[in-house]
Amino acid sequence: MKKLINDPDGVVRDALVGIEVAHPDLRVDHENRIIYRREPTRPGKVALISGGGSGHEPLHGGYVGFGMLDAACAGEVFTSPTPDQMVEATKTADSGAGVLHIVKNYTGDVMNFEMAAELAESETGVRVASVVTDDDVAVQDSLYTAGRRGVGVTVLLEKIVGAAAEEGRDLDTLAELATRVNASGRSMGMALTSCIVPAAGKPTFDLPENEMEIGIGIHGEPGRHRVPLAGAREIAEQLVEPILADHDFTGAPAIVLLNGMGGSPLLELYLMYGEVQRILEASGVTVARSLVGNYITSLEMAGCSVTLLRADDELLGLWDAPVATPGLRWGV
Amino acid sequence: MKKLINDPDGVVRDALVGIEVAHPDLRVDHENRIIYRREPTRPGKVALISGGGSGHEPLHGGYVGFGMLDAACAGEVFTSPTPDQMVEATKTADSGAGVLHIVKNYTGDVMNFEMAAELAESETGVRVASVVTDDDVAVQDSLYTAGRRGVGVTVLLEKIVGAAAEEGRDLDTLAELATRVNASGRSMGMALTSCIVPAAGKPTFDLPENEMEIGIGIHGEPGRHRVPLAGAREIAEQLVEPILADHDFTGAPAIVLLNGMGGSPLLELYLMYGEVQRILEASGVTVARSLVGNYITSLEMAGCSVTLLRADDELLGLWDAPVATPGLRWGV
Repeated sequence: MKKLINDPDGVVRDALVGIEVAHPDLRVDHENRIIYRREPTRPGKVALISGGGSGHEPLHGGYVGFGMLDAACAGEVFTSPTPDQMVEATKTADSGAGVLHIVKNYTGDVMNFEMAAELAESETGVRVASVVTDDDVAVQDSLYTAGRRGVGVTVLLEKIVGAAAEEGRDLDTLAELATRVNASGRSMGMALTSCIVPAAGKPTFDLPENEMEIGIGIHGEPGRHRVPLAGAREIAEQLVEPILADHDFTGAPAIVLLNGMGGSPLLELYLMYGEVQRILEASGVTVARSLVGNYITSLEMAGCSVTLLRADDELLGLWDAPVATPGLRWGV
Repeated sequence: MKKLINDPDGVVRDALVGIEVAHPDLRVDHENRIIYRREPTRPGKVALISGGGSGHEPLHGGYVGFGMLDAACAGEVFTSPTPDQMVEATKTADSGAGVLHIVKNYTGDVMNFEMAAELAESETGVRVASVVTDDDVAVQDSLYTAGRRGVGVTVLLEKIVGAAAEEGRDLDTLAELATRVNASGRSMGMALTSCIVPAAGKPTFDLPENEMEIGIGIHGEPGRHRVPLAGAREIAEQLVEPILADHDFTGAPAIVLLNGMGGSPLLELYLMYGEVQRILEASGVTVARSLVGNYITSLEMAGCSVTLLRADDELLGLWDAPVATPGLRWGV
């Protein structure tokens, strides 16, 4: 295992040190492994909190900041944070206007965030609403999930709902918006190689040199099928077609995320994006906004995913609103 | 070779398609493989042009936009663009105020940019000045270089001099500033793994599972030595100490870039940055600004590099100025 780490069991702890010193706008509670904005939540603003296993950076800590999250709880690599972390983040980030939990649909995350919401509400009376993202069309149930997995839409949702929270919208309105965004998005991913969880020290799965995994999960969990290695054009088809078969993306502007899994060069991601956009255009999808790069990763896995969000003028306006986080930044 | 590509010999051509459709603020001349800003250079503004082999994305095409470059010439992977490309970019981007060529110190790039400057000047009378970056302290001469290699400082220079160009400073002033920035910066890199040039189809070099290469070049060219794999803390020392031994970074604010080579997860880059900043503080270096991520890459190489720039109030002001490019964006 070749990694830029000290101790395989201390990777998250050590990385949080770097995140804090690299970003003066953020503050890290090292004991509870929570990343906050430097400034407390503005009174009257609903706090947005997410979190999950580490190894998907910039998700979630890299999306803490103006226009997106107020706090993110970091679990061990590919492991849910604990309810304690989420309770602490919820109490601390609440300014009195309530807290929205943004939860990717993995059994551990869902269970722990539910427990945390109950605890925080009963202990301090903070109002908590939750949205669970489940945009991955690849598989219905999986190793870590009942129902579909939450992947790329989470990034888009945190941006869009984060902008609405800055406008001062209330908790119920934001929860409704979040539910609508999740319902309007679909994703599909693929891997050329496995990743290595530091504490495991070996590849999560074996993938022969002449094969790829279509429908991969962001923890390396199995997808739909293994197929012979193909060119970018065919890979793009294998990702986009299941998305378009699952939801109607015509007749409305779309936001498209071509996401790298972490180990694929940006040169290849741009190449893939060209292929994806070509298919979308041929399919009658109008691409209004796009994002190409590493936004929800799986450590050093080589591969990519495609996320489509069916938008409208309101969602595009919220997408375009200023954001200032380590992972997404514009307009400020 | 597992890559998200169609044809190993058409990677740059295909990626340029994706870059253009992903970024409406950019325009691509596909025939000449030049990335421009969508809007022509403002009259009176000096045009900044860079370029080099592809495979280092976001460098250079990802730094075209307000506050940085006006155009970037893309060569084949790890291969200099031709003088023809540079002449075309120089003529097209010039608004009458002259053109600054920003050239990384590799034999092919330097020779071709020199030839292009002469041709452009003699053909159309455009005034051209050049700066050659050579910040890599690892080796004096190498496979592709007489003198030191140009690496991470190139990114910082394009940002700082780009901001000065937006202010309307003239060509001589900008060339002088660029020379000063290059002289104030030092870098050192390392690799855990090789990368694979698509047209070659096999790793550029072999690196055993228990070794790493300290002082690696961004094309995989040899560094100072191969040593047994070590922890992040020791790697940080092996990168920072040669930099501090080569130049005095105390008594002035420093801009620090912790750069990923392309294949290392962001989680590890943050971890490395924590180690680097600790050493800098202990060495009396005041970190004023920092940047952590993939900014000048070597395809999917795992590893990282450290760049330090000795700054002052003027350089920090130019660093903080608004920038809007695919690779660096803030304030706008």
